[in-house]
Amino acid sequence: MMKLYYEAHTCALASHIALEDAGAEYSIQRISFAAHEQRTPEYLAINPKGRVPALITERGILTETPAMLAFIAQSFPTARLAPLDDPFGFAEVQAFNSYLCATLHVAHAHRMRGTRWADDPAAIEAMKRKVPDSVGACYELIENKMLRGPWVMGDSYTICDPYLFTVAQWLEGDGIDSSRFPKVGNHRQRMAERPAVRKAVAEELA
Amino acid sequence: MMKLYYEAHTCALASHIALEDAGAEYSIQRISFAAHEQRTPEYLAINPKGRVPALITERGILTETPAMLAFIAQSFPTARLAPLDDPFGFAEVQAFNSYLCATLHVAHAHRMRGTRWADDPAAIEAMKRKVPDSVGACYELIENKMLRGPWVMGDSYTICDPYLFTVAQWLEGDGIDSSRFPKVGNHRQRMAERPAVRKAVAEELA
Repeated sequence: MMKLYYEAHTCALASHIALEDAGAEYSIQRISFAAHEQRTPEYLAINPKGRVPALITERGILTETPAMLAFIAQSFPTARLAPLDDPFGFAEVQAFNSYLCATLHVAHAHRMRGTRWADDPAAIEAMKRKVPDSVGACYELIENKMLRGPWVMGDSYTICDPYLFTVAQWLEGDGIDSSRFPKVGNHRQRMAERPAVRKAVAEELA
Repeated sequence: MMKLYYEAHTCALASHIALEDAGAEYSIQRISFAAHEQRTPEYLAINPKGRVPALITERGILTETPAMLAFIAQSFPTARLAPLDDPFGFAEVQAFNSYLCATLHVAHAHRMRGTRWADDPAAIEAMKRKVPDSVGACYELIENKMLRGPWVMGDSYTICDPYLFTVAQWLEGDGIDSSRFPKVGNHRQRMAERPAVRKAVAEELA
């Protein structure tokens, strides 16, 4: 049985939803950031990066949301969470998820995690000020160029959908008027109604 | 025939090497950052992100290095550039590449691309100052926890190897004493001797 290490309100929710979508047997364990549990020797032995998510599998430990999502899709092929037999379609899924991970999530992280990239308190404040612009620019691209509708990849639900839903939970906190992005908002609402999403969200906030 | 849009000294080199490794038929086209060609309407029609790399395929355009590398590996299975029939092994490859993309490359980008995340000139200087620390911390993890040797994933060469080689070219520019990381240095040297790497590097610098 797999085990997902998560913290509420983080990108770990994407893998959590995907595990539900896949019908996987899994357990979850919260890593409290407030208690700095991601920095304990026990957790660093699981994930030396000191971050969530991490997924314990029969074969070993996986980290990095795009890799975990693709692993879940490939491990549960009957759930049809990605176009597994089509390298181009699979690459489109991966390109979307890579953009969320390396551009959107990174832009967002400058609001709360600025110390990763600068030590000067004024610089950290300057980073926070730019988050609505930098994250907003990501959503402009997603709304206008990337989100096909009704799902991210069009008619087929894929591992892109729980990931977009997850990062979209941060829109208001990032100071963005989410009404600017009606396609993203519509996607978010339809995702929120799915039983797998409701279950995963409820478990994380329990 | 595929076409790779690149700029010299960027992460596009990873896909360029992988195309060589795969024995793919492809052409390359340089996008001059000095001439701001990544911002022309023509290039933005290819890649609305205004970045390199982009890969034109028979089916459409792909972006994002981890996605492109996996696509190349899956499209040329006889080149054995990833454990394609093993979801866990494939996920390990993807987790490594995702780390390079979303953590190491991002840390590095704070040296030259700070305007993505702050507007204040002093903040941009503060970001530059932290690059040796933040990028160095990534290499600590790679050296001690991630690079198995002789190749990233151990005995088998994979799409992780051209990506690590590519980002390792930036070590000195990022103000890091590369002698701190002998395994990375050894990997870099063995990569530099491979004919595919020599050809790709020579083409980009021609």
